[in-house]
Amino acid sequence: MNFSYEQTTKIVFGRGKIDSIGEIASQYGKNVLLVTESVNSPLALLYERVKGLLQQAGLTVHHYDGVVPNPTTESVDAGTQMARSEKVDAVIGIGGGSSMDTAKAVAMAAINEGRAWDYLFFKKQPEKTLPCIAVTTTSGTGSQVTQVAVMTETATQTKSAVFNNLIYPRVAIVDPDLMVTVPRHTTASTGFDAFCHCFESYINVNGSAYTDIIALEGIRMVAKYLRRVVKDGQDLEAREGMAWADTCGGLAIANAGVTLPHGVGMTISGHCPQIMHGESLALTYPSFMRLTYPAAVEKFATVGRILNPELSGLSDEEAAKRCCEEVDQLLKDIGMWLNFESFSVDEATIRRIADRSHDLPDYKANPVIADIDEIYRELMEALARS
Amino acid sequence: MNFSYEQTTKIVFGRGKIDSIGEIASQYGKNVLLVTESVNSPLALLYERVKGLLQQAGLTVHHYDGVVPNPTTESVDAGTQMARSEKVDAVIGIGGGSSMDTAKAVAMAAINEGRAWDYLFFKKQPEKTLPCIAVTTTSGTGSQVTQVAVMTETATQTKSAVFNNLIYPRVAIVDPDLMVTVPRHTTASTGFDAFCHCFESYINVNGSAYTDIIALEGIRMVAKYLRRVVKDGQDLEAREGMAWADTCGGLAIANAGVTLPHGVGMTISGHCPQIMHGESLALTYPSFMRLTYPAAVEKFATVGRILNPELSGLSDEEAAKRCCEEVDQLLKDIGMWLNFESFSVDEATIRRIADRSHDLPDYKANPVIADIDEIYRELMEALARS
Repeated sequence: MNFSYEQTTKIVFGRGKIDSIGEIASQYGKNVLLVTESVNSPLALLYERVKGLLQQAGLTVHHYDGVVPNPTTESVDAGTQMARSEKVDAVIGIGGGSSMDTAKAVAMAAINEGRAWDYLFFKKQPEKTLPCIAVTTTSGTGSQVTQVAVMTETATQTKSAVFNNLIYPRVAIVDPDLMVTVPRHTTASTGFDAFCHCFESYINVNGSAYTDIIALEGIRMVAKYLRRVVKDGQDLEAREGMAWADTCGGLAIANAGVTLPHGVGMTISGHCPQIMHGESLALTYPSFMRLTYPAAVEKFATVGRILNPELSGLSDEEAAKRCCEEVDQLLKDIGMWLNFESFSVDEATIRRIADRSHDLPDYKANPVIADIDEIYRELMEALARS
Repeated sequence: MNFSYEQTTKIVFGRGKIDSIGEIASQYGKNVLLVTESVNSPLALLYERVKGLLQQAGLTVHHYDGVVPNPTTESVDAGTQMARSEKVDAVIGIGGGSSMDTAKAVAMAAINEGRAWDYLFFKKQPEKTLPCIAVTTTSGTGSQVTQVAVMTETATQTKSAVFNNLIYPRVAIVDPDLMVTVPRHTTASTGFDAFCHCFESYINVNGSAYTDIIALEGIRMVAKYLRRVVKDGQDLEAREGMAWADTCGGLAIANAGVTLPHGVGMTISGHCPQIMHGESLALTYPSFMRLTYPAAVEKFATVGRILNPELSGLSDEEAAKRCCEEVDQLLKDIGMWLNFESFSVDEATIRRIADRSHDLPDYKANPVIADIDEIYRELMEALARS
């Protein structure tokens, strides 16, 4: 047993917790930047409500509403400019992963030289950041409790990330009441992302006893609640369970990391911005799991038995194999059994994606290392999967 | 589901990790205070080794070696004076709970007005602290990952605590190699304390889904490794397991708290400094568990089944009752089946302890609230237990 673990975010979890945002934010300053998608989005009422709560607490609120899905460097840079010119003390991101990641990147870039893209995980590292508060409105990205801010440089179709423990949000507000209006497909896509975070940190070669218990808790929550919440988005117990699954996923990857499917999924979204992050994972999982299970039989068996307790009577080998089928079934049940053709992605694009799929290092943390051609073959299985 | 969770300590866990202390400490300054028990203690060689590592990293090291078991205000104040006069940048505590708690209290008091005792949990709260690095050499107190510093005011026989998230150590080094020389009885006493931390946070009315998974992991480790490590202190896998159990216990109580036995145990040690903290818990547990289980049947049953998987076939009610017997047996197996008489504690002293046993608020977090007379009766059961 040999690990380091660091996670500094204060988690404030529960229905109605958004009401404490004024009190929370006022601990970090008087002049704050709200970072969100467009005020024309379905969350506009929430943005107004939060602004009101912040103003009631005596704060001055600036609003950057230029977040885009799969955040671009242009969008992050524009937010950074606003944080600098308004000289804000803190940044509050409200939304899904795009808004929270943008907020974290903006909070960091605002008081460093250059732009967020200059501080990618393999470049120079920041030594300071503005405090950031993350309010999640979906259950999947885990971004409220990670030190990662993903963004895409449009010109080069490169999706990469700032990764530094400095950019953990100071506070994560996880309020399941904010999630009841998430549309069914987004619920499914983000919920599957939460599963993937837990699963990939659990099988990760960099996992530890600590991240394992968190990851397995998240998988138990997904097994219990993901189908339920996709069926009935008003089911608050299920929303709560998935919000906790999502938080577990974030906590687990923050210290164990993700593996092959996430690296490949990021490359897919870098080339095909029309594919949601969770969708890119659903595209890769069926073939990825079959590639990987022989190298992590015991762990696949454990997850299989959580997804279907009836596998308890089987050998590890058999239960591990069946785990792949359980995940197939989960994808089918939540409407995430997808293929590339339905996104108008052709073989040539898949070739280009595969060729870039080692750009990110996540594949190295997989129990099996897949080379570029192996990844191409895996992706091709998803071309016309039915 | 409704909770807050905050734990900011970086955990560095594994055999040989003490070797990184120079690199770690140099992130926090150039001039540090080492806080330990007397240089005449069995750990003296370790103190010298650490001093050497720190000096090799270019640090100036001052050494306060005045820590006493069940730390006193006098001892904490003397350490505070040394931190102030040497103008240190950081404090490094090495040892068991006494040394780490003293280090945390000294780090805080050094840059605040007055003395550590002025900042007890119910008094004024500090707004700053020096960074503190905690190196644990036992497996039980969890102090390396808590925001608590316990101390006793000798004159009033009052044992109380500073409790503030500010005093979480910045870094906890948990190196099982440092624990192989811990004597058998201390291993048993601190190991049982680790169990109590996990158990009391698990049944705590302030527990959460997050603290529950950590607490149960710790209980699994105790079930697997405590008897083993008491039998053979050189068993490094067992030392490692107990070091992880101990860390889980600290993580769990940091956000869930302890209950009745810890409050009563602190009062016992306040009156009878000859009784180790773990011993005071062993004295209270048998009667405490029987008092409490009817109010937390499912949780007692879960713990019972971890301690003895054969209880899986029983009803929750029966497994919960049997959980009490399992803990009795654990205490017997590790040589911790104790009574007050063997510590020369008489009925009059027990009466005085009981009368003070509501001074600390922990009893309020128990699933059953015991009044003073109930606590007196419970303690009397331990007077001549055989």
